[in-house]
Amino acid sequence: MRQQKLIPNPITDPIITPITINKEKFMQDQLQQLKEKLTEISNLSRAISLLGWDQQTYMPPAAAESRGNQLALLGKLAQEMSISPDFGKIVDKLKRYLPDLDPESDNARLISVSSKDYDKATRVPVDFVVEQAKVSALAQQAWVEARQKSDFLIFLPHLEKIVELRRRYASFFPEVDHPYDALLDDFEPGMKTSEVKTIFDDMRPKQVELIKAISKMPQVEDTFLHQAFDEKKQWDFGVEVITRFGYDWNRGRQDKAHHPFTTSFGLDDVRITTRVDPNFFNTMLFGTMHECGHALYGLGIRRSLDYSGLDGGASLAIHESQSRMWENLVGRSLPFWEFFYPRLQEIFPTQLGNISVNIFYNGINKVQPTYIRVEADEATYNMHIMLRLELEIAMIEGEVAIKDLPAIWNSRMEEYLGVTPPNDAQGVLQDIHWSFGGLGYFSTYALGNLISVQLWEKINQDIPDLSDQIRQGKFSNLLGWLVDHIHQHGRKFEPQELVQKVTGSTINSAPYLRYLNKKYNQIYNI
Amino acid sequence: MRQQKLIPNPITDPIITPITINKEKFMQDQLQQLKEKLTEISNLSRAISLLGWDQQTYMPPAAAESRGNQLALLGKLAQEMSISPDFGKIVDKLKRYLPDLDPESDNARLISVSSKDYDKATRVPVDFVVEQAKVSALAQQAWVEARQKSDFLIFLPHLEKIVELRRRYASFFPEVDHPYDALLDDFEPGMKTSEVKTIFDDMRPKQVELIKAISKMPQVEDTFLHQAFDEKKQWDFGVEVITRFGYDWNRGRQDKAHHPFTTSFGLDDVRITTRVDPNFFNTMLFGTMHECGHALYGLGIRRSLDYSGLDGGASLAIHESQSRMWENLVGRSLPFWEFFYPRLQEIFPTQLGNISVNIFYNGINKVQPTYIRVEADEATYNMHIMLRLELEIAMIEGEVAIKDLPAIWNSRMEEYLGVTPPNDAQGVLQDIHWSFGGLGYFSTYALGNLISVQLWEKINQDIPDLSDQIRQGKFSNLLGWLVDHIHQHGRKFEPQELVQKVTGSTINSAPYLRYLNKKYNQIYNI
Repeated sequence: MRQQKLIPNPITDPIITPITINKEKFMQDQLQQLKEKLTEISNLSRAISLLGWDQQTYMPPAAAESRGNQLALLGKLAQEMSISPDFGKIVDKLKRYLPDLDPESDNARLISVSSKDYDKATRVPVDFVVEQAKVSALAQQAWVEARQKSDFLIFLPHLEKIVELRRRYASFFPEVDHPYDALLDDFEPGMKTSEVKTIFDDMRPKQVELIKAISKMPQVEDTFLHQAFDEKKQWDFGVEVITRFGYDWNRGRQDKAHHPFTTSFGLDDVRITTRVDPNFFNTMLFGTMHECGHALYGLGIRRSLDYSGLDGGASLAIHESQSRMWENLVGRSLPFWEFFYPRLQEIFPTQLGNISVNIFYNGINKVQPTYIRVEADEATYNMHIMLRLELEIAMIEGEVAIKDLPAIWNSRMEEYLGVTPPNDAQGVLQDIHWSFGGLGYFSTYALGNLISVQLWEKINQDIPDLSDQIRQGKFSNLLGWLVDHIHQHGRKFEPQELVQKVTGSTINSAPYLRYLNKKYNQIYNI
Repeated sequence: MRQQKLIPNPITDPIITPITINKEKFMQDQLQQLKEKLTEISNLSRAISLLGWDQQTYMPPAAAESRGNQLALLGKLAQEMSISPDFGKIVDKLKRYLPDLDPESDNARLISVSSKDYDKATRVPVDFVVEQAKVSALAQQAWVEARQKSDFLIFLPHLEKIVELRRRYASFFPEVDHPYDALLDDFEPGMKTSEVKTIFDDMRPKQVELIKAISKMPQVEDTFLHQAFDEKKQWDFGVEVITRFGYDWNRGRQDKAHHPFTTSFGLDDVRITTRVDPNFFNTMLFGTMHECGHALYGLGIRRSLDYSGLDGGASLAIHESQSRMWENLVGRSLPFWEFFYPRLQEIFPTQLGNISVNIFYNGINKVQPTYIRVEADEATYNMHIMLRLELEIAMIEGEVAIKDLPAIWNSRMEEYLGVTPPNDAQGVLQDIHWSFGGLGYFSTYALGNLISVQLWEKINQDIPDLSDQIRQGKFSNLLGWLVDHIHQHGRKFEPQELVQKVTGSTINSAPYLRYLNKKYNQIYNI
């Protein structure tokens, strides 16, 4: 309704002049033009996403090169649309109306987000975009080979170029406090390096302390998770769980992929992918709940934002807060298993018939420092992230020689987690992100964890019997809360603003540490 | 090698002038520019094809509208590229070199095909394209409803508009002999209505005669085809068969779709789709072989034509000749089943253990006039096509009132096949083609049948022991012949030209009628 307040009412508002009317009409015309441009960009982006989805699910192996050519063309067209002078002119005209608009209205946000997007896109020279695409393509190939052979030297010259390009990218935004801010902003709009550092510096010693305390206690049993579980039965159980969560199969689907991901082709088509390990229970189910969390976010965005450019997530951290909430705060909780465990035992009587729900719950929450981030438990996960953030900032500051990364990595792993990777494949080479230039990305994973519990505390205030509802397999109030407070806003608010608005605090680690301590004190009898 | 003859050799050809060199260099530059434009159009078309493939295989139901929006944008971009004045200028410049080029060289054909495509695309006003897209979208919806309710009146006003638009389309090509030529040319480049009429007029009475002769003989047994066949086993048998045909799974895949189709995203990605009827054997297997025939064509195109605009099939009829050859001439032949039937009996012992290969062969070749084209056997299929062609020509000529179509349809069905559809759903409303404006399309199905046997006679001359090879499950010589004579050329030759070049005759029905008579005289002991 807010948008309408600018339309003058000739009866109650007798001092309208033709100029006011024209001004309003002119703004609406420009807004219409902006939306048309954004709709084109949306449609093209969605087509690009489908090419990517297919590439990772069904594409025949030999088609990799031709798919790359298709993606390159569509990417070029999308880039041209995003930086077209026509688009810039419309945005510039609309910015003049910002003082007249409610700053929290959809239109005001649409104008400011579009303006920021346009400004960022046009600051980066087209040549640079092309060079970066080429360097990344080669770097990804080199990374695959380097990881296979566990030989960092194969990847080294590529990573050096990637870092050099990322530094150059940061230089297009000279106004930032720290060059890393420019990288972070692509994933966490408005977030500063100094903020993240402060949050992590506060959290690090406390999390290290918890991990040490756990390591002194007797280990929980989890061997029952490592046995043969029929793939189809695992899949079907996952489907049962996320159907109860509220995943709308009319607007989504689930397929297999080697590296699970969620992708949106608009508010009516948000798909998840999962992989299944026939000999380990956790991979499939927790992966499915995680991706479902992302998908529920995409499906919950307000329909009036569709095609507007605000129809995505607020940031990667906010997105991750949703996936981690469904995966961990819901899916690794005792109430959840009090409801689902009898069903799971029914499906896998041989494997789990003699395992009690409490033993099962402890097992899926086992804490054990490992080399590999994606396999890390809740207690140790953030340590992997903090290590990467420190290295990324040092790389961008030029404070570290890239060739020294493996040694620094290993010594920091020892310091934070008490383990030393046996080789670089399980150490510095384990993640794909740097190879595609994704510096600035990792911290969003840890921030997502923190935000998930900040929201969780608020939800439990608003829905005091949430645990009981979960114990009865009811998730509709939870999902409704998330839609109302988070999902529906799409990309309208920046992450810090959204967290502040919803929880009353900015992003911080206190709730997450409270949650971890409580959970693990109970499981490990600390 | 032909392209190189224009590059002068300074030693053997001492009279080169700088002007000749410049001319050659200029042509190569223009050709390079043409190929770059065509590569962009190819990449965009392939992306569009993927959106279409997904729409018919995996897309969630609610996404139909948003997919339509994506397709509309990409279609618009492709249209803009195809009619861009830049493209036209390049083509115009290149046409000047045609007299210097070997008319059968790739470059000469590339220039003439591009020139014809550009001319056709630019003759059609953009407004018309938009109007047609809108009318078709509504007409398709109406057709679905009309067929469901078996009520032609629901579809009538839409079909009237479609026909009106097709007549208007034909008017953009005033130079043709018959307005229907303009429609036919979109599917069968260079083919004339009069040619098709002559072929069909010659064939019609002979095919009617055969059908009548068969109808007087005792009917063959085929009830064993109508029983429960496990879906997965059917699927796996189909995979076994087309793997032996030579379908390259590294460059293709098979998925389920309600309306089976084949689609190409380039020479390294040509996918087929099939549907499975759990209670009728024929649907899955013959459908799979049919689509595989299309796919082998797409996969056999010469690599140097990739992205050139010549990297498609020569025409729909040539394409259909390939699918019908693998489905019928191979897949419904006795030698084929002499090889595969023991394996099929092994898979379905209960259903087929007591059925001999000869009884099975007769059963899958049963002739029985039906109302439905897609279910028609080889002997009656063409009659369905001839009926549609006559009606289409009459509609375009304005010789028939659209409202009278159902009555005319039914009386002609009685005349040709001795059956009268019980309702319009099984009569005039059965096919989707008219609803998307596909007038001019149907005759290609029958022409494909004729061409398949014309080629088959030539292949059997060139590979005299082909039957024995098939009896041993060997298809590589057959596929190799098709690649050499048909597939590799892509869209380089027009269909009549290609058939003439390969078989020494233009398209005609004599070989097909010889084939039908021989086959059915044997099966029905006529």
